[in-house]
Amino acid sequence: MNDKAFRPLIGITMGDPNSIGPEISLKALSDETVYQKCRPLIIGDAGCLERAKNFVGIKDLRINAIKSPEEGLYSFGTVDVLDLDNADINKLEVGKIDKYAGEAAFQYVDKVIDLAMEGKVDATVTNAISKEAINLAGHHYSGHTEIYADKTGTKKYTMMLAFQNVRVVHVSTHCSLREACDRVKKDRVLDVIKIAYDACRSLGIAEPKIAVAGLNPHSGEHGMFGREEIEEITPAISEAVSMGINAEGPIPPDTVFSKARGGMYDMVVAMYHDQGHIPLKVLGFVYDQETQKWKAVEGVNITLGLPIIRVSVDHGTAFDQAGTGMANELSLKNSIDYAIRLAEGRKK
Amino acid sequence: MNDKAFRPLIGITMGDPNSIGPEISLKALSDETVYQKCRPLIIGDAGCLERAKNFVGIKDLRINAIKSPEEGLYSFGTVDVLDLDNADINKLEVGKIDKYAGEAAFQYVDKVIDLAMEGKVDATVTNAISKEAINLAGHHYSGHTEIYADKTGTKKYTMMLAFQNVRVVHVSTHCSLREACDRVKKDRVLDVIKIAYDACRSLGIAEPKIAVAGLNPHSGEHGMFGREEIEEITPAISEAVSMGINAEGPIPPDTVFSKARGGMYDMVVAMYHDQGHIPLKVLGFVYDQETQKWKAVEGVNITLGLPIIRVSVDHGTAFDQAGTGMANELSLKNSIDYAIRLAEGRKK
Repeated sequence: MNDKAFRPLIGITMGDPNSIGPEISLKALSDETVYQKCRPLIIGDAGCLERAKNFVGIKDLRINAIKSPEEGLYSFGTVDVLDLDNADINKLEVGKIDKYAGEAAFQYVDKVIDLAMEGKVDATVTNAISKEAINLAGHHYSGHTEIYADKTGTKKYTMMLAFQNVRVVHVSTHCSLREACDRVKKDRVLDVIKIAYDACRSLGIAEPKIAVAGLNPHSGEHGMFGREEIEEITPAISEAVSMGINAEGPIPPDTVFSKARGGMYDMVVAMYHDQGHIPLKVLGFVYDQETQKWKAVEGVNITLGLPIIRVSVDHGTAFDQAGTGMANELSLKNSIDYAIRLAEGRKK
Repeated sequence: MNDKAFRPLIGITMGDPNSIGPEISLKALSDETVYQKCRPLIIGDAGCLERAKNFVGIKDLRINAIKSPEEGLYSFGTVDVLDLDNADINKLEVGKIDKYAGEAAFQYVDKVIDLAMEGKVDATVTNAISKEAINLAGHHYSGHTEIYADKTGTKKYTMMLAFQNVRVVHVSTHCSLREACDRVKKDRVLDVIKIAYDACRSLGIAEPKIAVAGLNPHSGEHGMFGREEIEEITPAISEAVSMGINAEGPIPPDTVFSKARGGMYDMVVAMYHDQGHIPLKVLGFVYDQETQKWKAVEGVNITLGLPIIRVSVDHGTAFDQAGTGMANELSLKNSIDYAIRLAEGRKK
């Protein structure tokens, strides 16, 4: 089989059975082009997906319940599901956070990680789970990333966010803004520049250009508004450059993302959570005032540093939209696309 | 004259004569709809504008040099310029930062403030000046805002940024991120909520909805990532609400701007410079990789708290683009539109 014909097998968890996961999975797989690029396999429950067909009004997809990836048809019109048979629709309540659904959702994640570790799928994509529901079911994790890290024995991992060609890795994420300032240290910044470089390479970018954002307004304006740029960020960039990485900065935080959007950089190293999250959500999230819901949600979340590929939708369970068929599948489709690209990168 | 026919007189400074100001002024005024909405008057130099016609390739505009606003024709096809006759093209050098051009630019600002204070123009719009050039000319200000504050005797003023329907006021701007965290205090947050409310009202919004952003990721997630939301921001919002202001929050910083864009809020209170600047520039600034220049720059900067109306372009002098005719006039047109709206608000 030549490279052109390589259609990676992508394991996609169905997400919480009470969430929008089953619905957006079907919507995403009702696009023929997905099947031209990959072999999608849902890890979930066949009965729950069968019901979701009614919610989304897509009647002509056939749900193909299988017990191992080899049995899949991977052909447009059929949705292959590795059926864990653990989400009985009579026990489910659309939109509800509960233990039964949480347990089912956890099992999909557990299974897809096993499949990837055994090399039975080329990459994994996750729909959203409820932290509360999995904890009710006795799985004490704060989210997917921790489950993946734990099961794969990974200590050092980083979140990468992407919307189309704008990609971001963070020096810190879930901590206070004051603590985020403290965490801007040369060694950590250098580490994240290297992670950014490696991630670009794994996406197939031969000569990545990395932008490193400043921490302070105007990148500190020569020390007038903070000295982290002078004392920590610039030395990290210099060291990265001396290692042969094409890194630039510190670039003022309020223009670096527009420049990346314009194609000037392949990846932006952001200094804190919102510095990276604000631009990506402004670009990818479209809010509808009338319904007071998100009408388009684009963007993906990739966990770097794992031995397997993991791409996640960039939104939550959206329990309030479950059952309506209205939830948007764009983020899931973006995630599948990124998973394909990463799988192709590993193949090379 | 009834309200419908009110065409406010807008004084527009030409900006630094060596900058893109003369060119984008002509480009903006070669749109007939501008004249339907207002009476634009450039405060500048007629000879310099005459030359700029060649740069932008617009031959059929007539430059009408006048000595007082009453002499203007304010009719499409004629560009009225209050001619200070201080920018001799033989003494100018396109793209250069110098004392002569800095002095001329300063005089336009000085003049437009006088005209507004005397009620001879309804609002002022400023093109960019060079801080370095005006300082070379002996005017020791860091920018327009300080000149306006000084000349009008204003002590308390605030910057508001806008891109279309997304409007932002900041709790702090030009200080380090660490200091910005320190400045998130209940009294200041409450002050800025009130400023936001008043600004919306002056834009003609009868019942403004104000969003107040959090400081920390996820608005601190119930105190896990910082306590400013609990200790400072929430009490400020409660007090604003008790005063009858429709204020909501703290809203997670990474989704509040998408919601505002979707029409849910009329104004966002941002906790620090980049929290507000990043989303507005991501929305308004479009970068062109090929030319490595901004190909579209939208958005405006409004100084709130002055006795007169002042709206500014949201970009700099762009000396590197001066003389090419390629600079984009969108931000200037946005500024004129906002000035009109504010002038109409005052008229009511």
